[in-house]
Amino acid sequence: MSEVYAARRGRLRDRCAAAGSAAALVSRPANVRYLAGGAPPGAALLLGADAEDDVLLCPRPPATGPLGGGRIDERLRLMNLATPDGDPAVAAADLAAGRGTESLAVEEHDLTVARHRAMRSVAPRLRLADLASAVEQQRIVKDEEEISCLRIAAEITDQALGELLESILVGRTERHLALELERRLVDHGADGAAFPTSVGTGPNSGRGGHRPTDRRVEEGDFLSVGLGADYRGYRCEIGRTFVIGSAPADWQIELYDLVFAAQRAGREALFPGVACRDVDHAARQPLVAAGYGEGLVPRVGHGVGLEIVEDPQLAPGAMGKLDACVPVTVEPGVHLPGRGGVRIDDTLVVRPEADGGPELLTITTKELLAL
Amino acid sequence: MSEVYAARRGRLRDRCAAAGSAAALVSRPANVRYLAGGAPPGAALLLGADAEDDVLLCPRPPATGPLGGGRIDERLRLMNLATPDGDPAVAAADLAAGRGTESLAVEEHDLTVARHRAMRSVAPRLRLADLASAVEQQRIVKDEEEISCLRIAAEITDQALGELLESILVGRTERHLALELERRLVDHGADGAAFPTSVGTGPNSGRGGHRPTDRRVEEGDFLSVGLGADYRGYRCEIGRTFVIGSAPADWQIELYDLVFAAQRAGREALFPGVACRDVDHAARQPLVAAGYGEGLVPRVGHGVGLEIVEDPQLAPGAMGKLDACVPVTVEPGVHLPGRGGVRIDDTLVVRPEADGGPELLTITTKELLAL
Repeated sequence: MSEVYAARRGRLRDRCAAAGSAAALVSRPANVRYLAGGAPPGAALLLGADAEDDVLLCPRPPATGPLGGGRIDERLRLMNLATPDGDPAVAAADLAAGRGTESLAVEEHDLTVARHRAMRSVAPRLRLADLASAVEQQRIVKDEEEISCLRIAAEITDQALGELLESILVGRTERHLALELERRLVDHGADGAAFPTSVGTGPNSGRGGHRPTDRRVEEGDFLSVGLGADYRGYRCEIGRTFVIGSAPADWQIELYDLVFAAQRAGREALFPGVACRDVDHAARQPLVAAGYGEGLVPRVGHGVGLEIVEDPQLAPGAMGKLDACVPVTVEPGVHLPGRGGVRIDDTLVVRPEADGGPELLTITTKELLAL
Repeated sequence: MSEVYAARRGRLRDRCAAAGSAAALVSRPANVRYLAGGAPPGAALLLGADAEDDVLLCPRPPATGPLGGGRIDERLRLMNLATPDGDPAVAAADLAAGRGTESLAVEEHDLTVARHRAMRSVAPRLRLADLASAVEQQRIVKDEEEISCLRIAAEITDQALGELLESILVGRTERHLALELERRLVDHGADGAAFPTSVGTGPNSGRGGHRPTDRRVEEGDFLSVGLGADYRGYRCEIGRTFVIGSAPADWQIELYDLVFAAQRAGREALFPGVACRDVDHAARQPLVAAGYGEGLVPRVGHGVGLEIVEDPQLAPGAMGKLDACVPVTVEPGVHLPGRGGVRIDDTLVVRPEADGGPELLTITTKELLAL
């Protein structure tokens, strides 16, 4: 794996050099992890003119707070700050200035104004340029190692959800179901939940990101769940909606069929070269045509990887096209205030037609199950 | 409760006015929650010259991610951004400039360079000053309502820990014990864990913030746990160390007694007017004297509240004194590489002698239990 990180740093180095900066400072945790293999809390990665100049600067560990965050590339030089309050970004500016670096590209969308000023004050002659989202852009297309982590994350997620479906649900609260799902994710090998698990029953069903309450599952409810495993830092997402009881009501069947058709249209629109907004349109259009245009979510999907929400965005105003090997979610939903609703969410990898088209990672059935 | 938030905003308004800014923008989530009662993700609070000018600006909710974060003060005006990618901070700058505001104080330790620049570009004639940590400073001394939330958080934490101690521990993994503790926190009414629960067995015991592994509890192990409930946003912390099996070894008893004495010395040093560094010294000195000065944690405690780590810091280099009604942790520990160690952590509220001295919130016994 070590070569992978060195190669990623090399690509970023080339890009920075072309933009006029011989050095870059990466501070956003997911970006640090992508380039260094691991990201201790607060660590910052200084990329120099040559591979040997790269240094991962780490703060002194605090008394509280998780350690870890992946296995750090052993080729990379580590530097632990001597003082407990030291800021790795400031230490990096000092180091770069000491090496005679003229221009350092920094992540202005991550560094606070206060940290940026402290860097300027410790190295007044160092020019601070903007690295912008260069690393995020590099992260969009995944290699097969990354996709394999996502595939395992999805398997774990399917297992956790499958077990829940075999248990008795009526009478249990949203909170308890969410906690049980998270426990099962870890049981099956997840490093944790990829995002806070969402369970919505009855009037709460169908809302993306609904935070679980003490409402109990009742006969006749829609039950929506949204969950995902974090496996070695890679995060996937699944969303399903079920009906509680033996016979769904007509409005439930109709609404489910509609959202299912919309989600399928979104999935089927995924191929290399498609415009992101066209995927959004494919999944959104059936819902708008059925009169649910108001109150729809602002995007029907997004990239996933080391963060649960990454570029690309599948939204009406999104620019750009999808490439092969980009994992995305497709997650349209309709929520009727006071009644509930349906949301169906999969994680898929964009693949060319010749390779069989989009690869579905989350394979739990999307039939309307009555539980 | 509504008056409380208005009064807090009023105090901040006065402070800003005295510093030359008629308006302030609060973006750090815990600070927004403190002043507005709730903090929807990404929301920013604009304080104007008068109470009626205050506005909570909220982004359009994303498809994924938790909602909520407390009940928003109903006196406060809410403004939802129209576009999905809009930044409430930028909208606030626009709004302030439109009102003819000359100077807007912002949280430079929270705003990124990119957001700050976007604010300047939408309102080029608005002067952006630094609010610095004015809200964090205001948050240090708690009112009785806040302390009551912390007290409930501590009760929940004690209950969760107490139940774990009644169960069989040998053979279970650190991960499972941590998950069970988190589930029990929620069972007893927590809104969630205040921080990632830490469980360390054998050689992992005694490390603050140890991230649970798949190591199983064995006879003769030290077992250290660190956990805390989040109740209405207020977060407390407890840490205890136990011995597994019937008879602790001599070295375990000695080490435990030492850390216990150090922790007691720290607790007993808590009174209004004491220098923060003196509390650190009180708890650190016994450990240093016993030869454990190397590798000690950089601070023996810290404030808690809407964040699990707040000012004041109880550390060797800390400035300032403790006031009454400041909740802090006292959490010294010793970790012997390869063998394990002991950490004991309580949350207490500083109270004057006349009121009975420091109020211990986390009341689980600190006797060395053999489980």
